[in-house]
Amino acid sequence: MAQRFVVVMAGGKGERFWPQSRLTRPKQLLPIVGESSMLTQTVERLPGLVPYENILVITNREQRDAVLECCPMLPPENVVAEPVGRDTAAAVGLAALLVGRRDPGATLAMLPADHVIHDIEGFCAVLRAAFETAEAQPRLVTLGITPTEPATGYGYIQKGTALEPVQGREVWAVRRFVEKPDLEKAKSYVASGEFLWNAGMFVWTVASIRSAIAAYVPELESGLAAIERDLASGRGADETLAQHFPGLKKISIDFAVMEKADNVVTLAATFDWDDVGAWPAIVKHLASDAEGNVVRGAGLVHAGANNLVVSTKEHLVAVIGTDDLIVVHTEDATLVVPKARAQEIKDVVKKLGDDERWKKLL
Amino acid sequence: MAQRFVVVMAGGKGERFWPQSRLTRPKQLLPIVGESSMLTQTVERLPGLVPYENILVITNREQRDAVLECCPMLPPENVVAEPVGRDTAAAVGLAALLVGRRDPGATLAMLPADHVIHDIEGFCAVLRAAFETAEAQPRLVTLGITPTEPATGYGYIQKGTALEPVQGREVWAVRRFVEKPDLEKAKSYVASGEFLWNAGMFVWTVASIRSAIAAYVPELESGLAAIERDLASGRGADETLAQHFPGLKKISIDFAVMEKADNVVTLAATFDWDDVGAWPAIVKHLASDAEGNVVRGAGLVHAGANNLVVSTKEHLVAVIGTDDLIVVHTEDATLVVPKARAQEIKDVVKKLGDDERWKKLL
Repeated sequence: MAQRFVVVMAGGKGERFWPQSRLTRPKQLLPIVGESSMLTQTVERLPGLVPYENILVITNREQRDAVLECCPMLPPENVVAEPVGRDTAAAVGLAALLVGRRDPGATLAMLPADHVIHDIEGFCAVLRAAFETAEAQPRLVTLGITPTEPATGYGYIQKGTALEPVQGREVWAVRRFVEKPDLEKAKSYVASGEFLWNAGMFVWTVASIRSAIAAYVPELESGLAAIERDLASGRGADETLAQHFPGLKKISIDFAVMEKADNVVTLAATFDWDDVGAWPAIVKHLASDAEGNVVRGAGLVHAGANNLVVSTKEHLVAVIGTDDLIVVHTEDATLVVPKARAQEIKDVVKKLGDDERWKKLL
Repeated sequence: MAQRFVVVMAGGKGERFWPQSRLTRPKQLLPIVGESSMLTQTVERLPGLVPYENILVITNREQRDAVLECCPMLPPENVVAEPVGRDTAAAVGLAALLVGRRDPGATLAMLPADHVIHDIEGFCAVLRAAFETAEAQPRLVTLGITPTEPATGYGYIQKGTALEPVQGREVWAVRRFVEKPDLEKAKSYVASGEFLWNAGMFVWTVASIRSAIAAYVPELESGLAAIERDLASGRGADETLAQHFPGLKKISIDFAVMEKADNVVTLAATFDWDDVGAWPAIVKHLASDAEGNVVRGAGLVHAGANNLVVSTKEHLVAVIGTDDLIVVHTEDATLVVPKARAQEIKDVVKKLGDDERWKKLL
């Protein structure tokens, strides 16, 4: 019987969680929510679905050591580092190629490393249905999140024809993918009931996704074929990727394949889901005091409400008389920003990158 | 000719500058403004007035080592530590006693250790006139600060009869001392032109202040006499003070003597003066950027105005999108408080004292 695999994509930069997140320690490697890293939590969600031997993590050279530390339960060779970032289509192609070398008939789920999902049973149930959906026919399966608000930070998936249910779950043909909309459009999408958020969770067989890449991004397929040949000849993975990866076409899987293919279907993710995109998003996953203050590590809030204070265990952060403020202390940098201005953190991270004195804080 | 001395009072707790100030490292021992400690700056203001041998510092046991470090220019025996705090009358009595042992005919100025005065020449000129005023007749001289606003944080001195000028400077009999007033009263004081701020700067001869203490606080005078006898017999200062100091009456010099004596006179301090009572007060002594932000150490403000950021040289504090906020980073504690709420720092310091985990941060 064909095997199932999960490939976790762990290559994000995570500048929105500065100063905790750094180039070599982005969000997925941090315990932003919970006691272990987001990546560790992602991997630990999976044993009900596939064995650890069938879980791969794709990351980059800078983060490989940290990823290995976060994933002691995985065989080290299952952690694969891209020598350079070539966007998601190349990562998807590489994942299919690597899984295909183990089992050409395999199905694989591609999952982001940095989302919060508490309902593990519900998650596994949806994934099982998605695996079966992808195995039943050559289809590209995406999981869609039922929108809870007219978010402008996600792409949307418009449902088309209802197909035959799988494991009692509705499956829809995808009518179209839509890039991040403005608020007006987002509102109409949510009101229509026809749209789901695109959370970047995909399931397909090795054969289905490789055919789609061959059909819609042939230049990527030829690069993948070269990698496959070298690996088959016994050449090392690092050396092989170092040679061929930089030449791969840089394009997102959404743009390259999902928006073009006619065999894309979607299942609604009926589990809780949050991509915890920035500091303000973490508070709903953490305990707060009577005034709505959330404190991680050594912190105290005096005469203030709805603040988020993050520190180490030893360094006390005392916040007095403010509301809705984020204060994050790390060993070498502190951030102070109102929740409503958190999107400006990336501007400051950019500033730091332009300043010789502070580059080291990236 | 009788000598002149200056005694610097350096015993304050300085909780209003937490987390930089601590029990053993209060405001006067910190470079709150400028590059050296407030105490060092106070002592370095004096050589135009008296030689270093004639400068004494009265502090407490906890701060003695730090005071010695701040005052390498002084003979170490000129730094005297009270074994316990007994308010300013006891400190004044001790100062007079110690100076009197060196020169019974001496005049001494008593100065706080933690005020900012930039105009050293003007300061010395006023002090010289005050010394002469105190030496010409047995008078208790206080320096009054011409009010610039109806401050409610200072006591006031009401001028009485104008006396004969000294060194071309006006000298007034003091009509009365007034405790910190409410805003209404403060406004009327300032409007009247009859009031000066009481800045705790005094000049008197050993004989004048000892007589006044004997007359108005006889129980303090008898304690001082006991200390004097022991020291004269060759007993060590630490041992002597340890025995007698705890028994001295605990009362302020204002309350014990200045409000009662009939020979109190005042001169206007015509130099710049600031007691820098709390974090918001330091900004006017420091350079600010175009948006009014003041940054000491490693800090940056993005899209914000009139913030005060204080850090070490190595730890970056990044403040985004806030106005009028104080952020102070130290190695083991960080403070975040709006300027307008800075008076609540002492409440938090009290909280810390009540918490076993954080007592160490006092």
